Amino acid sequence: MKIYGDIGSGNCYKVRLLCALLAIEHEWIHLDILAGDTQAPDFLANNPAGKIPLLVLADGRCLSESNAILNFLATGSELLPQDPFLLAKVQQWQFFEQYSHEPYIAVARFIAKYLGLPESRRAEYESKQQGGHKALAVMETQLMTTPYLVGETLTTADISLYGYTHVAQEGGFDLSCYPAIQAWLNNIAAHPAYLGME
Amino acid sequence: MKIYGDIGSGNCYKVRLLCALLAIEHEWIHLDILAGDTQAPDFLANNPAGKIPLLVLADGRCLSESNAILNFLATGSELLPQDPFLLAKVQQWQFFEQYSHEPYIAVARFIAKYLGLPESRRAEYESKQQGGHKALAVMETQLMTTPYLVGETLTTADISLYGYTHVAQEGGFDLSCYPAIQAWLNNIAAHPAYLGME
Repeated sequence: MKIYGDIGSGNCYKVRLLCALLAIEHEWIHLDILAGDTQAPDFLANNPAGKIPLLVLADGRCLSESNAILNFLATGSELLPQDPFLLAKVQQWQFFEQYSHEPYIAVARFIAKYLGLPESRRAEYESKQQGGHKALAVMETQLMTTPYLVGETLTTADISLYGYTHVAQEGGFDLSCYPAIQAWLNNIAAHPAYLGME
Repeated sequence: MKIYGDIGSGNCYKVRLLCALLAIEHEWIHLDILAGDTQAPDFLANNPAGKIPLLVLADGRCLSESNAILNFLATGSELLPQDPFLLAKVQQWQFFEQYSHEPYIAVARFIAKYLGLPESRRAEYESKQQGGHKALAVMETQLMTTPYLVGETLTTADISLYGYTHVAQEGGFDLSCYPAIQAWLNNIAAHPAYLGME
């Protein structure tokens, strides 16, 4: 099993973290987005969307989209509920992550950390703050009620949201006003098989 | 089972279409986003993210995010594969839809159809065209190979992408250069239990 990714990307790191937690052996192949590696013809043949992470199975079948990869790799493990409603709740949080969290928090982080917050993108960076805090508030509301997003135990939903939330400060988001999120971050980082981003 | 939605929204329509295809009985409760219905305290208590569609089960449990609702309602039906890899491919397309398709095609349609393409948002509208065509090209590449997105049969992935693709022209997207997408749209609309958007 090969995984193409860049561990500095939260979407790729999620997959790496899950592999660590479940002790899934894999070959990690580093690609550099800024250098154009994901737009090379060989890569596009496996993933026409031109994005990482990308999972390539031993038989050559390919799977893209970080959260789909997480759920596939976690099938049958304690990180993915079997109950249909709880499984749908995992997906609810993952779609929330891709639509209402990542486009604000990950993009603000990208502009600040990777592009050095150039003046030409400052307005865009600032426009991301309100949406990011809205997403964090939705998470805080849930985590005030349950220790993990879907209930009492860690699921792939938590891995999905952990990816960019734990580095949200790099996008200018102060987490000190979200105590439930902070406790949740600490719980995940305390897992015996935890792997950090860098 | 209650479903809160607005059938003019592709995200809500997806759920309504699935219910028609699978003959799932439900009470449909219309909410008006522009009138602020999704920001009312009663609604936010059930969905802190303040979005439709929202599924409320008879026992009061709530599920949001259109694609999570689709997969939950389709569990055990012919529209959701049981094979873990194919199930992950369904999710791959659904995450693609929420991240790389909806933010371009649905937003362009919203600006044009619901806001009347005001000058203040023309630049944003035009900025959505390139990303929308990129998403359509990714779909076309797959649909040139298989009749449905995940293979030989209709799945919830197709319902997810059908929602906004079949009204993409309302966002200014000419589908005439995507013959495989057009054939796929026609196949779905020919389903004996098909329900149109309006």
